[in-house]
Amino acid sequence: MLTKPLSDAVEALATLKNQRVWSLLVTVFGDLAQNDGDVIEGPVLSVLMSDIGIKAEATRVALHRLRNDGWINSVKSGRNSLHSLTASGRKESSAASPRIYGHPNDAPKHWHLLIMGSTSARSRKAMAQLGFAQLMPRVYLGPRDATPPEGALVLSPTTLPPWLAEQFEPKDLAKDYAELHQALQRVQNAVDQAALITPRDTAVLRCLIVHNWRRLVLKHPELPRDLYSPGWLGHDCRSLVSSLLSKLPKPDLGQISLE
Amino acid sequence: MLTKPLSDAVEALATLKNQRVWSLLVTVFGDLAQNDGDVIEGPVLSVLMSDIGIKAEATRVALHRLRNDGWINSVKSGRNSLHSLTASGRKESSAASPRIYGHPNDAPKHWHLLIMGSTSARSRKAMAQLGFAQLMPRVYLGPRDATPPEGALVLSPTTLPPWLAEQFEPKDLAKDYAELHQALQRVQNAVDQAALITPRDTAVLRCLIVHNWRRLVLKHPELPRDLYSPGWLGHDCRSLVSSLLSKLPKPDLGQISLE
Repeated sequence: MLTKPLSDAVEALATLKNQRVWSLLVTVFGDLAQNDGDVIEGPVLSVLMSDIGIKAEATRVALHRLRNDGWINSVKSGRNSLHSLTASGRKESSAASPRIYGHPNDAPKHWHLLIMGSTSARSRKAMAQLGFAQLMPRVYLGPRDATPPEGALVLSPTTLPPWLAEQFEPKDLAKDYAELHQALQRVQNAVDQAALITPRDTAVLRCLIVHNWRRLVLKHPELPRDLYSPGWLGHDCRSLVSSLLSKLPKPDLGQISLE
Repeated sequence: MLTKPLSDAVEALATLKNQRVWSLLVTVFGDLAQNDGDVIEGPVLSVLMSDIGIKAEATRVALHRLRNDGWINSVKSGRNSLHSLTASGRKESSAASPRIYGHPNDAPKHWHLLIMGSTSARSRKAMAQLGFAQLMPRVYLGPRDATPPEGALVLSPTTLPPWLAEQFEPKDLAKDYAELHQALQRVQNAVDQAALITPRDTAVLRCLIVHNWRRLVLKHPELPRDLYSPGWLGHDCRSLVSSLLSKLPKPDLGQISLE
């Protein structure tokens, strides 16, 4: 069990909304065991999930589901289970990693706008996968290095009116980022005050930080800061996530105490 | 009366649709007597309108209307009437002149696109007066030197997909320009073949050319050629109009034969 101040950090993150156990497991494997050959032993996974506040039965059910979905592979080794991402699970984790772990300095600085022809329109989701956020029907915003679909009218901005952020910025995400930002600040305080952070603490904190961050950052295309309103904390969250993860480098799973 | 080949030129232009007599008179004064102090004597106006194919009674009615509307001022001088543009008529004529008489080389070569905020939208007509043509709701195209309204998102194009012209180009105008282009080619042939072009011929041809051209060109904002489809003849019409008007320089109205 974690002690103060780290228990406060865990509480700040673990009480954010929408914590599905299977999704949390996807984060744990994606963060701690993403490489080919990486495994997490059953007892290690159990203590981490327990520290996060997930009951053993809930973890078992979620693991079952992820095995059925082809995300996780489990094999027996003596009395232990060895869990690992499947090839397709690794592929999806690795595809999301640049968005999740990208350094703030690597965030896009320039943007462009697309207008799709009336007959070549694509779904909002397909455009989001290309990195473009919808401003209005047929009109999308994206980082300048995102490749537009064939036939798009591509334009570079020469003005930046205030109504633009107001219109395209998702209000619900703005609120979610504000909450995450507050939680991350509590985590930062806790980490800065902690006399000792064990490998197990580190693993738990990393997984909670990455999980709550990826739930939001993967919901929308990433656009330059100047496209958002002054109150938008998405980019501030990335800065905090990035500095916290560098203070909490990925632990050696063999060092994780099972006591 | 004009003789072949000039009568053919007049016929080509005078049979184009939508020739309102009062509007034709606005052209005649705007082209031949736009400056402060310019007058057209009654008998001169009569022969010109008659050569164009307008009956004397129709000209009288139209003059009456234009006097009531404050466009034309008529005074008696001995047995003759002297007709001239009013100050406001001159102002309107002069405001339209750059669009009508502009040299093809002065046509805009670069364009930009505007997106208006959802609360700052203006009427299509108000945007047209600023030089912008609507592409879709809240989205406008205009020459790069047209000044956008306050608060517009202004963007420079980096691609030019073929659907763009297809979508914004007015189909009815495309057809009208094609017909005008054909008529102007007949006029060009006639002018090139004519052994003699009198000041009266010149005045009649100029007025018909300018009239049919301004009916179309003043209906839409002027955009660079590359925004239009390959079949669009608006810019070709400007070239023909410009070269014809330079071959038919504005005559001295005192030289116009009343025979």
